[in-house]
Amino acid sequence: MISIDLNCDMGEAFGNYAMPNDAILMDYITSANIACGYHAGDAAVMQQTVSLAVQKGVAIGAHPGLQDLQGFGRREMKISADEAYQITLYQIGALAGFAQAAGGKLNHVKPHGALYNMAAKDAALAKALARGVKDFDADLIFYGLANSEMLTAAQSLGLKTASEVFADRTYQDDGTLTPRSQPNAMITDEEASIAQVLRIVTQSEVVSVTGKIVKLNADTLCLHGDGAHAVPFAKKINERLKAEGLTIKAPRI
Amino acid sequence: MISIDLNCDMGEAFGNYAMPNDAILMDYITSANIACGYHAGDAAVMQQTVSLAVQKGVAIGAHPGLQDLQGFGRREMKISADEAYQITLYQIGALAGFAQAAGGKLNHVKPHGALYNMAAKDAALAKALARGVKDFDADLIFYGLANSEMLTAAQSLGLKTASEVFADRTYQDDGTLTPRSQPNAMITDEEASIAQVLRIVTQSEVVSVTGKIVKLNADTLCLHGDGAHAVPFAKKINERLKAEGLTIKAPRI
Amino acid sequence: MISIDLNCDMGEAFGNYAMPNDAILMDYITSANIACGYHAGDAAVMQQTVSLAVQKGVAIGAHPGLQDLQGFGRREMKISADEAYQITLYQIGALAGFAQAAGGKLNHVKPHGALYNMAAKDAALAKALARGVKDFDADLIFYGLANSEMLTAAQSLGLKTASEVFADRTYQDDGTLTPRSQPNAMITDEEASIAQVLRIVTQSEVVSVTGKIVKLNADTLCLHGDGAHAVPFAKKINERLKAEGLTIKAPRI
Amino acid sequence: MISIDLNCDMGEAFGNYAMPNDAILMDYITSANIACGYHAGDAAVMQQTVSLAVQKGVAIGAHPGLQDLQGFGRREMKISADEAYQITLYQIGALAGFAQAAGGKLNHVKPHGALYNMAAKDAALAKALARGVKDFDADLIFYGLANSEMLTAAQSLGLKTASEVFADRTYQDDGTLTPRSQPNAMITDEEASIAQVLRIVTQSEVVSVTGKIVKLNADTLCLHGDGAHAVPFAKKINERLKAEGLTIKAPRI
Repeated sequence: MISIDLNCDMGEAFGNYAMPNDAILMDYITSANIACGYHAGDAAVMQQTVSLAVQKGVAIGAHPGLQDLQGFGRREMKISADEAYQITLYQIGALAGFAQAAGGKLNHVKPHGALYNMAAKDAALAKALARGVKDFDADLIFYGLANSEMLTAAQSLGLKTASEVFADRTYQDDGTLTPRSQPNAMITDEEASIAQVLRIVTQSEVVSVTGKIVKLNADTLCLHGDGAHAVPFAKKINERLKAEGLTIKAPRI
Repeated sequence: MISIDLNCDMGEAFGNYAMPNDAILMDYITSANIACGYHAGDAAVMQQTVSLAVQKGVAIGAHPGLQDLQGFGRREMKISADEAYQITLYQIGALAGFAQAAGGKLNHVKPHGALYNMAAKDAALAKALARGVKDFDADLIFYGLANSEMLTAAQSLGLKTASEVFADRTYQDDGTLTPRSQPNAMITDEEASIAQVLRIVTQSEVVSVTGKIVKLNADTLCLHGDGAHAVPFAKKINERLKAEGLTIKAPRI
Repeated sequence: MISIDLNCDMGEAFGNYAMPNDAILMDYITSANIACGYHAGDAAVMQQTVSLAVQKGVAIGAHPGLQDLQGFGRREMKISADEAYQITLYQIGALAGFAQAAGGKLNHVKPHGALYNMAAKDAALAKALARGVKDFDADLIFYGLANSEMLTAAQSLGLKTASEVFADRTYQDDGTLTPRSQPNAMITDEEASIAQVLRIVTQSEVVSVTGKIVKLNADTLCLHGDGAHAVPFAKKINERLKAEGLTIKAPRI
Repeated sequence: MISIDLNCDMGEAFGNYAMPNDAILMDYITSANIACGYHAGDAAVMQQTVSLAVQKGVAIGAHPGLQDLQGFGRREMKISADEAYQITLYQIGALAGFAQAAGGKLNHVKPHGALYNMAAKDAALAKALARGVKDFDADLIFYGLANSEMLTAAQSLGLKTASEVFADRTYQDDGTLTPRSQPNAMITDEEASIAQVLRIVTQSEVVSVTGKIVKLNADTLCLHGDGAHAVPFAKKINERLKAEGLTIKAPRI
């Protein structure tokens, strides 16, 4: 039976600034990537989000980002491989404490925003992140962009990986995402988006922007957590995947 | 044989700002309380300091503080018990990751600055900190001010504790420190300071500011890490304690 | 003709976290107290909010707070008078730059959150804040709680002041606010709230929690900016005050 | 008579972390570029450093940097031109407040670290910074790297500029600095360094790394403020320049 994981970035509230979708989305996802205080989140938000995940049986992942609260971790910073390792380890550790205290367990790590995008292309950075994950706990699963340097780096260190795909992004002939700078990067039609997901999940292939059929392995699908559309889309994709006879579940350590 | 632990706050460098004494002091102390990024320290400093401690065989402790980098965690903030619990857990977790990655192990937790001072008197805050320690790892040792609410709270939760004394501070009749706001709070004469330490350690008593002999249990002695005087004093007190036949070693989990 | 100012805390968004009410509220208020980056706001938000205020003809005020982003400046911190002066000056200067660049001008300063509450009662702190305002520009108007140390301190330094009242808070016999810790601190009924405002504004008096009629001078009324209720209430109070023949305008330097 | 300005980055202490050279260096320099709290400095340090500059008659400049305290503003961040404009304006304003309060006046602006390096090459970023300076006060002098985009951008907006040269860096044939990544980037011999400065200042030319004589206009020489060598070198270069009959003074608005 084919299975797929639905993951979503969670715990990206901060202080007085709430993220009201989080609690509802937990019903439709199987993996929560929880912000660790560098790009978003704080100790209070982390505790609440981890508790929620434990309660709902959702797999808990650390979601380390660049230390740029104002930029939400989305602005590239030139950091060294050592710095990438250090901030990964710091944030995984911080989140793991809350998981432990809540009677849960860290399951995976997924880098955030600019850190994710940089590591997708930069092998040295990807390796530093993977090393941070492994040095913390060699059983953790590394969630990274399909066909990216992240998966290669994590696998070369012997880590289990989850290949991540996107519902609302188009793919190029080489199986990587079309950059957002290009006009055809996004899929705005909901049904087209769902169709792409189903094809990726059931047939391990995607139609590229040039019309070519490209192999694309998917272990986990990224759902967005913010915006008015996030909750209804998560509900719909969850239901459609189940209606197709697919099992929705997290890869577990 | 009588033994005493020598602890020192370590890893309080930050970014471009170095703390050059740290590496040298590791030779004279047995417990390092390592800053966790809230009042001082950062992911790079934490990695380096933990490595140094592992290499020197010094016990590794988390040193959580208030999130006030500019004030170095020394300015009191009105935080709730929940917030105290959350920031404790966050910081212990973050440090534990580095200990784990370096092949070491967290041994203890000692709160920093204003958090330490507030928890010494405030039972609810002390309990929140102790709960944070216990929920992370019930084997960790809680280092707290002798005769303070911290030790009471930690013991009531079943945690092992280390009663902390100071070389350069005077004591009141009830066995607590003379507040710094009072003129006779500090011992500036080095020999008087060493004499006080020896009496506390070997006889479990101290002469209070009024001349009374007061019971004072000491498991660990706090040495200061900054200032030109820090290294020579650490060396001297280490040597004098050994010369008296005392064993210098950390309480270990 | 009796006039009253309607002020509201603005620009309290941060990075990715929006405050969507701000733009709408500008139509109903006459003074905007704009966050300066310490408790909320950032350089981008400040620029946008100042531009909006200039465009709408709303008086621009600096809204300095404690440097506690996570706590939204609402957690008391023990800062010295010197520190209070420094953080006030820093934040006023930062905001004034945006006002200048937008072709506007700083009109007033209103402290935020815990800084406001502490300075209402602490004469030394109030004086430090007033000194920060005066040293920046002696023409600026100090907005402070009616009958508080803030107004006394500002007036003693020769600053113009605006006495601030609240629609949804009850008052004690001495003309100060009932602390929020007490059950009768808040007025939840909208009509009762509007009635209190009208009495304060037109008759310079308020009925205290014990039923006593107390003198209360009002130059400016604080409206809340967050929550679903903020916009309709601002609209209603604006219309009701005008319907009573009152002029709504900011005190201007 | 030939004159040259000696500038130094100042006020880069933070909280508990001191920069003890600052007070001494003020005797040998004529322009202080004062950190504004983003990459270093805080409200207390800014007040003290501005006071010192006023007292010593040293020209006060804002030294805006990227918001990266841990990286000391030295790590490149991909910020937009709008963001560059906003953070420049914020920081200039914040510093100007302290200058005003101390009875001084802002004289110039010099970007810091990675912001300086990026704007040296990126015309759009340089223009955003220059626009920030101009919108604050069109009389301020823009200090920027000789032969860089910064000077071009500032001049195109009608700002006065000061062309900055370095004592300890070598130059390429096109009059720009040899990148630090190259082995011959630094001049480590003190006399060679002084000789280069004298040639630049008196003859407006420098010998490039390939041995070519290159035109190089110098209005201001950057002295380093940290390290054990900083104070004696500042003293020596100050004395040598005077011994050559040169006037040391800041360009003034």
